Amino acid sequence: MEAKPLDLPARADHAILWRNDRLYLLDQRVLPAAEAYLELQSAAATAAAITDMVVRGAPAIGITAAYGVVLAARQGYADAPSDWKTAMTPGLDRLARSRPTAVNLFWALERMQAKIDALGADDPAPALLAEAQAIHQQDLAANRAMGDLGARLIEARTAVITHCNAGALATGGYGTALGVIRSAWRDGLVERVYADETRPWLQGARLTAWELHKDGIPVSLLADAAAASRMAAGGVGWVIVGADRIAANGDVANKIGTYSLAVAARHHGVRFMVAAPTATIDPQTPAGADIPIETRDPGELLCCGGQRVAAAGVDAWNPVFDITPAALVDAIVTEKGVVMQPDAEKIAALLAG
Amino acid sequence: MEAKPLDLPARADHAILWRNDRLYLLDQRVLPAAEAYLELQSAAATAAAITDMVVRGAPAIGITAAYGVVLAARQGYADAPSDWKTAMTPGLDRLARSRPTAVNLFWALERMQAKIDALGADDPAPALLAEAQAIHQQDLAANRAMGDLGARLIEARTAVITHCNAGALATGGYGTALGVIRSAWRDGLVERVYADETRPWLQGARLTAWELHKDGIPVSLLADAAAASRMAAGGVGWVIVGADRIAANGDVANKIGTYSLAVAARHHGVRFMVAAPTATIDPQTPAGADIPIETRDPGELLCCGGQRVAAAGVDAWNPVFDITPAALVDAIVTEKGVVMQPDAEKIAALLAG
Repeated sequence: MEAKPLDLPARADHAILWRNDRLYLLDQRVLPAAEAYLELQSAAATAAAITDMVVRGAPAIGITAAYGVVLAARQGYADAPSDWKTAMTPGLDRLARSRPTAVNLFWALERMQAKIDALGADDPAPALLAEAQAIHQQDLAANRAMGDLGARLIEARTAVITHCNAGALATGGYGTALGVIRSAWRDGLVERVYADETRPWLQGARLTAWELHKDGIPVSLLADAAAASRMAAGGVGWVIVGADRIAANGDVANKIGTYSLAVAARHHGVRFMVAAPTATIDPQTPAGADIPIETRDPGELLCCGGQRVAAAGVDAWNPVFDITPAALVDAIVTEKGVVMQPDAEKIAALLAG
Repeated sequence: MEAKPLDLPARADHAILWRNDRLYLLDQRVLPAAEAYLELQSAAATAAAITDMVVRGAPAIGITAAYGVVLAARQGYADAPSDWKTAMTPGLDRLARSRPTAVNLFWALERMQAKIDALGADDPAPALLAEAQAIHQQDLAANRAMGDLGARLIEARTAVITHCNAGALATGGYGTALGVIRSAWRDGLVERVYADETRPWLQGARLTAWELHKDGIPVSLLADAAAASRMAAGGVGWVIVGADRIAANGDVANKIGTYSLAVAARHHGVRFMVAAPTATIDPQTPAGADIPIETRDPGELLCCGGQRVAAAGVDAWNPVFDITPAALVDAIVTEKGVVMQPDAEKIAALLAG
């Protein structure tokens, strides 16, 4: 990937930066050991950064892709000022192929495409940058809105469990699940956050613990398999997670292990909240079974910390996401409102309203 | 630990070796990257090897401790031939403190103590070695018996999920859960084994995958949190695990994550089998809540592959075991017979019979 570092103090709420007319991403692959920004100079480099998980989290992928479209347009206009829309097509295609599951990616590309369609022959970069920045700012505003809506669902001070990282790092800068947790913490409703470490990428250990600890919110790591036992030990009122895609019927695709938490939560009477912007809801996908689930390299499981841990010749089953059926979800929290016990009718009403 | 290497090809069924009048342990901390035997020259070194997890698995801990008693007696007799029973007491105490949860440890120490009590002033080592070897051989025979009993419960060819390592490495040489799987594989009843990687020690990735792959049994690793999703995908008929202690009412203490599997299995109609020798059943412990659960260093979660992964200042909740209530267990398989839907009455009848 063509990328240069930027010397800036790392901030979870500045994981995606447009600065000096350039796109920078906080490299989430190396956090918390290193806090480094990479400069992305093309749509191809931006797509590669999404594929390689320099940036991850459905909303953050969408925002990054929007900025990637600006880079594609700028290059297309430089290469062929009279036919920049054609010239930028390969860049758009590359961005669309960067990851398959997060629907925010396609949502952002469609929104940028609509803007492209409306533009004439002039330099498209300023208008497209304004659109990308609007997507970014609207995501941040949506996060704050859903954070407050989600916090209101928590009736009494309690411990919560979260999975993967649905935080500032995964979004425009406040977080979906961690946005709810931030708002609830501010309101005195969160005693402690138990963060699943989230194998194989350890986003919980590397990212969620890092960003909550920076904010002074008490956080304890859990082995993923310990979450059910932690629920049985008592004191956990809610599981709060994000989503990579929500089907029209309320089924939720999210990081592998989310479904396991939902099953355990139901068994223990712990409530289960999904916080996600409406851009995560895909009305074109009827149900969870229709969501394409990305499978990644088995090596992510066969190795740990860069070292091979499993014997040679051993195989692994490594889907990145799983599907939690709507029936196990108590609440879907969006910037437009809360859907309790989600189903197709309620989801459609939310999107219409 | 005072220990010297032994140059022998590593075999899962030779994880504990008494050879040339010396005790050797296959170092399970470094498998599969390295296959190395350590020589243990004292009860203290043996206890340290148990604490440090050179050897792990409840039956293997019991067998190792029995050999440790031989070393303690040999040293005690060398130091004080006329009062060897007193002289060996510190060694016995050190062994008893090596790990708190596996009841096989205390069972083996009590059996060795009974032998000690029956001995006179002569060199105790030969009689105690014979007793330790009897414990070892009886465990192996028990494994084979329960392997066959457990396999008979599997009605049709199916995939199975296992957790941690309850294999040859964890026992006298055939395995409890993996003993059932070996017998079922021999009988054509196992299509594939899904092995949870089992954070934080990765016994599934490092040990179970290694020993099943050596035996030519098809094995795929799973992230622990992926097991529920794998059940939802279909084709998994049984979860088969071992136990570190079984209470009188049938509650099971086993590696953290076992309970999560049991909850998920019940949710999916997957059956749940615990394979363990009767030495694992503790009639003195009424219920799971009475079992002491070892908590280990949070560093096991804060680091991965020897590298710190979590931000400085972050805490972790790291119990090594969890409790699966008897109500979630379909079958407890022992060398003396099978208990379906275990409860206190059926467990007592098994032990009496």
